Amino acid sequence: MNKNKRLPNDCFSLPRGITWTPVDQALEQLRKGLSTLTQSERVPVNYCVGRVLATTVYAIVNNPPFTNSAVDGYGFCGPAKGLGNRLELMPGVASAGNPFNGIVSQGSAVKVLTGAVLPDGVDTVFLKEDVESEGNNLISFTGPLKVGANTRSSGEDVKAGEKLFTAGHKIRPQDLALLIATGVAFVDVYSPLKVGILSTGNELLDDGLEYPYLEKKGKVFDSNRPMLLSLIKRWGFQGFDLGAIRDEKKLLRKKLNDASLQVDVIISSGGASSGDEDYVANLIKSEGKLENWRIAIKPGRPLALGLWNGTPIFGLPGNPVAAFVCALIFARPALGLLAGRGWVKPAGYNVMSAFDKTKKPGRREYLRARINEDGNAEIFSSEGSGRISSLSWSSGLLELFEHEEKVSEGQLVRYIPYSSFDL
Amino acid sequence: MNKNKRLPNDCFSLPRGITWTPVDQALEQLRKGLSTLTQSERVPVNYCVGRVLATTVYAIVNNPPFTNSAVDGYGFCGPAKGLGNRLELMPGVASAGNPFNGIVSQGSAVKVLTGAVLPDGVDTVFLKEDVESEGNNLISFTGPLKVGANTRSSGEDVKAGEKLFTAGHKIRPQDLALLIATGVAFVDVYSPLKVGILSTGNELLDDGLEYPYLEKKGKVFDSNRPMLLSLIKRWGFQGFDLGAIRDEKKLLRKKLNDASLQVDVIISSGGASSGDEDYVANLIKSEGKLENWRIAIKPGRPLALGLWNGTPIFGLPGNPVAAFVCALIFARPALGLLAGRGWVKPAGYNVMSAFDKTKKPGRREYLRARINEDGNAEIFSSEGSGRISSLSWSSGLLELFEHEEKVSEGQLVRYIPYSSFDL
Repeated sequence: MNKNKRLPNDCFSLPRGITWTPVDQALEQLRKGLSTLTQSERVPVNYCVGRVLATTVYAIVNNPPFTNSAVDGYGFCGPAKGLGNRLELMPGVASAGNPFNGIVSQGSAVKVLTGAVLPDGVDTVFLKEDVESEGNNLISFTGPLKVGANTRSSGEDVKAGEKLFTAGHKIRPQDLALLIATGVAFVDVYSPLKVGILSTGNELLDDGLEYPYLEKKGKVFDSNRPMLLSLIKRWGFQGFDLGAIRDEKKLLRKKLNDASLQVDVIISSGGASSGDEDYVANLIKSEGKLENWRIAIKPGRPLALGLWNGTPIFGLPGNPVAAFVCALIFARPALGLLAGRGWVKPAGYNVMSAFDKTKKPGRREYLRARINEDGNAEIFSSEGSGRISSLSWSSGLLELFEHEEKVSEGQLVRYIPYSSFDL
Repeated sequence: MNKNKRLPNDCFSLPRGITWTPVDQALEQLRKGLSTLTQSERVPVNYCVGRVLATTVYAIVNNPPFTNSAVDGYGFCGPAKGLGNRLELMPGVASAGNPFNGIVSQGSAVKVLTGAVLPDGVDTVFLKEDVESEGNNLISFTGPLKVGANTRSSGEDVKAGEKLFTAGHKIRPQDLALLIATGVAFVDVYSPLKVGILSTGNELLDDGLEYPYLEKKGKVFDSNRPMLLSLIKRWGFQGFDLGAIRDEKKLLRKKLNDASLQVDVIISSGGASSGDEDYVANLIKSEGKLENWRIAIKPGRPLALGLWNGTPIFGLPGNPVAAFVCALIFARPALGLLAGRGWVKPAGYNVMSAFDKTKKPGRREYLRARINEDGNAEIFSSEGSGRISSLSWSSGLLELFEHEEKVSEGQLVRYIPYSSFDL
């Protein structure tokens, strides 16, 4: 794997002397410290949806490519007066994909259908519904019509050479339509960011077959890893399952060594605090480079950010709710930056609160929320961060800012739908 | 292909005597007329993200599976008074995945770490930070502590047998976490809806190599088909490229015959009006079953809904903007219903308008919009529905209702982000 692009050793260093880092400062540090790690590749335009452009893209041809009729009607050389417009009807028809080959002289008209190239001599079209009489090859209609009426000019949407998208843009289905319509056949995109997902902990079980023994052995199913793997894929990155590793230094070291050759970035969950049993954090601290970020956020708080053989590691909290929220708030924009997208903020909306709540000032809180039938935000009954069911109950996060001390029913609050993080 | 499930012949019949059908009535007709066409299959839980549940799913085990410590601390038999709590410290430690094997008797305590099963005899934990003295195997701390303090009860999130999700739910990454945490190893999901995408028109070119001849031949690139194919995939359906077909009855008939054996539903674009050159509509009308819906909507209007050998066909307008909007507003919820999801409405939000605009009452309008830096909605400068670039410029649709006649700056308007249609 080509690892030409590297992050500086101090990319995760926070200013000293702060006990609890505010969320915005932590995000700003990630934004400043990280840069694109992926290479670019050229792909046929039909394969670029969901990919990130590596270069600015310009239109090759005009859209529309030629001036054409916007309606079914009759083409002639305009303008036309209000009354007494009589034209000689030429035989034949111009339709989409079947141009009319003759020349339409002044005083003549020819039948044209929507999308047809305007025949030579035609610059204006009147609607077929407006024909007043027809017979002896003569047609008449009432105007007035300006030159160009009922036509679409070549390039009226986009002109050849115009900028379509800048590098970093992630292509959506409608963007593909624009690329194709303007004659773009290939684009340069970043290769997908390779993200390894690792879980650590002696308590983790890997499959559903052992459940009768869960309690006896003190085991739990590893739900973080599949959740994070599918989040990663949804975000357009390439997920690598690095497995669940027991808390043994030797195993962990080997796993990190192997993974750092295979992937661009590692996301682990669990062991991110600074206790004796926080094996991931302790190992990276002693043998790699590690920063423990204590962030003024709920749920979440400990975030271990490090480098192992130059490969960045995001150590998320082990708690599923905290892991999910920290993945959305911190890992997603950071991974976007590593993947060439630049820094992407999720779209949020002001909605009315359907609840009352007091809050500890000085920290940011993300509440699991959904929109009720009245269009107002309701929150999950419990804030316990072991409540995985709250993630399924909710459809987004309410963002309560550091200065806020309470939320009252009817007040506007900032709601970020989970779908905003998918873009 | 198993085609046991069929739609009734009159599923697309609108009440007679209405010239322009309001959007809500058209949607209601789709909702009433359509039903699930797909079969169900059992898949391992790790493969279910993005799939639609075919049955209600219940928890197999409790989450958490056993009562465990929520903190690093000392476990004992509670409750504890405010002062003078002294306990004998037993050797050993209970950690996550490594249960303590002895029994903790009244008056004793044992070290426990976060996530550890509570040892026999322990029902309460005090925080390690609260130890006041330690020595001679004695520890003391100040309470009071209620029984169960600093522990997480088995099943406090979800109890075995509890309902997790109902049929029709589309699984997200966090839902996978909940399924795994509650011991669910397999789920029944609907097989992905097979959607064939067809373009028709003599003007359509299929690749970007012929562009020097575009104007001469009156050809345009087919942007609808790739756009619709990638939208379909984004929505979790299985897309089939049925190609671009010239306007020839014989070719079209063969294509529809073949496709109706291969896919569950066909989406075509172009030829959906009722003019002479609307080949798709005319063919289906004469040899299959067709309803032409004239919907009071901008952009859009003609929608041809039909059945060919029992396979439903959605004929979208040929215009890319109208095709895109009609796909989002009509095809997406209809396909969801065919795919077993039930009827899903996109989430919209009230945002402030950054513009003034007058509107024709009596029809619904969907404006291509985005949210500016102030958080207000701005709209694309031109409403022309040939402006493919407007789809790329925008990040959602503003929904202006039938009764509205104008929008003023600062007024609340309903904004539906494109991402709302992806869920």
